[in-house]
Amino acid sequence: PSSKLPQVGTTIFTRMSALAAEKGALNLSQGFPDFAPDQRLLQRAADAVLHGNNQYAPMTGLPALRGAIAALIERHYQREVDAASEITVTSGASEAIFDAIAALVRPGDEVVLFDPAYDLYEPAVTLAGGQCQRLVLTAPDFRPDWQAFEALLSEKTRLVLINSPHNPTGSCWQSADLDALWQAIASRDIYVLSDEVYEFIHFGQEALSVHSHSELRERSLVVSSFGKSFHLTGWKLGYAVAPAAISAELRKVHQFVTFCTVNPLQQAIAGHLTALPEETFALGPFYRQKRDVLRAALTKSRFKLLPCEGTYFQLLDYSAISDEDDVSFCERLVDEVGVAAIPVSVFYQNPPKGQRLIRLCFAKEEATLIEAAQRLSQL
Amino acid sequence: PSSKLPQVGTTIFTRMSALAAEKGALNLSQGFPDFAPDQRLLQRAADAVLHGNNQYAPMTGLPALRGAIAALIERHYQREVDAASEITVTSGASEAIFDAIAALVRPGDEVVLFDPAYDLYEPAVTLAGGQCQRLVLTAPDFRPDWQAFEALLSEKTRLVLINSPHNPTGSCWQSADLDALWQAIASRDIYVLSDEVYEFIHFGQEALSVHSHSELRERSLVVSSFGKSFHLTGWKLGYAVAPAAISAELRKVHQFVTFCTVNPLQQAIAGHLTALPEETFALGPFYRQKRDVLRAALTKSRFKLLPCEGTYFQLLDYSAISDEDDVSFCERLVDEVGVAAIPVSVFYQNPPKGQRLIRLCFAKEEATLIEAAQRLSQL
Ligand SMILES: CSCCC(=O)C(=O)O
Ligand SMILES: CSCCC(=O)C(=O)O
Repeated sequence: PSSKLPQVGTTIFTRMSALAAEKGALNLSQGFPDFAPDQRLLQRAADAVLHGNNQYAPMTGLPALRGAIAALIERHYQREVDAASEITVTSGASEAIFDAIAALVRPGDEVVLFDPAYDLYEPAVTLAGGQCQRLVLTAPDFRPDWQAFEALLSEKTRLVLINSPHNPTGSCWQSADLDALWQAIASRDIYVLSDEVYEFIHFGQEALSVHSHSELRERSLVVSSFGKSFHLTGWKLGYAVAPAAISAELRKVHQFVTFCTVNPLQQAIAGHLTALPEETFALGPFYRQKRDVLRAALTKSRFKLLPCEGTYFQLLDYSAISDEDDVSFCERLVDEVGVAAIPVSVFYQNPPKGQRLIRLCFAKEEATLIEAAQRLSQL
Repeated sequence: PSSKLPQVGTTIFTRMSALAAEKGALNLSQGFPDFAPDQRLLQRAADAVLHGNNQYAPMTGLPALRGAIAALIERHYQREVDAASEITVTSGASEAIFDAIAALVRPGDEVVLFDPAYDLYEPAVTLAGGQCQRLVLTAPDFRPDWQAFEALLSEKTRLVLINSPHNPTGSCWQSADLDALWQAIASRDIYVLSDEVYEFIHFGQEALSVHSHSELRERSLVVSSFGKSFHLTGWKLGYAVAPAAISAELRKVHQFVTFCTVNPLQQAIAGHLTALPEETFALGPFYRQKRDVLRAALTKSRFKLLPCEGTYFQLLDYSAISDEDDVSFCERLVDEVGVAAIPVSVFYQNPPKGQRLIRLCFAKEEATLIEAAQRLSQL
């Protein structure tokens, strides 16, 4: 059949993880933890499978889980959310993002996103018949230029897609960024989709979330992921939070995309969140430690470390080592030193000329991080 | 926001299940079992959660699961399937159907479906910018008129959506139907999406599947569901089988909708399918027994039983009892006799005038079926 997504190939994550497996390399490419999730949460899931309900969950998510999410958001961001009408549980943050785009973007609409951008945003916009406008962010700090942003807005702009902490760069926005965004869109008919899957993985003082911005959040969908927050990327459990009228449109799509998400895993997360409200989300210190181990082990290498304020990704500049493009360089890394990384150019529509960056995932055991850094230091 | 799906409300399944719960009625509305799944499969899932991999599965599904599906298809339908390029595991059959429509239907395309039709088909077509053409099937046998079908085809027809065993009517196609379909589309550029989620729940001699039709299957996506086959609707595990070129397009969408499905549950199903190849799918006799219990218990009622050749749904004609429309009648059933059913008119775009049908799900314990039938017999 003729393709509706002719530009799309297999994602870089699939390709690099497969290459790593094939060559027995340390896999710091695709973002997922190599350590065990909380045993108590796994035990809850096992119990729910054996003794709980294995039939359809309610379409919008188990009430107990939505209630626990509402409590989480109130605790962290002092936002009151109505669990019944404003929270929708989805098959991972991916589905929430896809559903939001499918629900809001109409043929001919424009969507502004920030480059480098996570790979699913653009195909979802394309399938909805929309067009992406990209504001390019550049190393080392990847801060948006808000004047340039305003110049991208038009009568056709329907949605702005933001992501902080930011994958792949590890940069975080400041509250002034959310204010600038709000100033730019306040008087226009524009929605915001905020991909906050790394919301608890940041190394600064304060969490920054659209949840905390009392004006912006009324126009926004905020998406998060238990996969990232509980080290369970294979559970595919995420959620979207938005005012009732926006949630109603998202739910119309969700209802026909997956209808509902896995019932026993929802039971497990609901129980865990309710039983352990305090200790659950100390992810900042946990991942800062890993980031610092990786960075320390790379100081004597010829890679240049970029700042990393959040996410579990560290960018490395390899211009002192090679002037190859980053895709070839990553392929060579697997072969020559046995480390799999992600080339950053794949996140751009037009990668900045001469930018030589790769991304390492540090959601790994310390021994793995140290071994990878030693291998990379040979170059 | 303005709605892209203005006609869509909350599905009838959600509404009736909620009403049943609120009023304490026997819930024979939404299709799901009220009995326990195979304990050995649940134990496998618990073990996989506790001791297996809880991170991302491969995008197309675990190789072990795809291999087991290929073996299943070969065993049942003598079709050789390449597990690597032709099978994609999805978050329920719903996601497979949604992805297939999103991948194949372009703005302006037409999709032919058979009315009554499952509720997710049309919204998925609408979101893709397509139009549905509906061939109306009527009681009691719901057989398609293949001349009328041909008259619906046009230059714009891109996809035909079929479903046998058929929800909500319980009718099954015969191999002559697949031949007629193939004759009608062979010389045209038309694909077929075959929703076969009830493939193992049929009460005739032979399973009928597009898998067995050597020409049709080359143009088709065949969708099935472990939720239906293993009594686990809340696991949301389904799959799509199609020739490699069609699968490649489906996968481009799947990759950005949910990326992958729950890893430990895939491990459990793969193990179960491999360990118990023979006894797994004796669903015909299992559900025939339940169907017959329900039918026998209703013989003295004023409902007229329609034929039921497959699925776990039994249609009842209530014209001897009331001339209300079926939605009001179902609401009254909950209140007056404490049984929740599904009105059949909601599956039609234009319900046939004077057709008075409700659907009962008999995937229930025999005691539940008998109690429900006794309550209905009071009317
Ligand atoms: C869905 S696989 C990609 C995981 C991820 O978020 C990343 O590596 O950026
Ligand atoms: C996704 S809820 C509907 C379940 C079902 O297939 C039916 O009742 O027809």
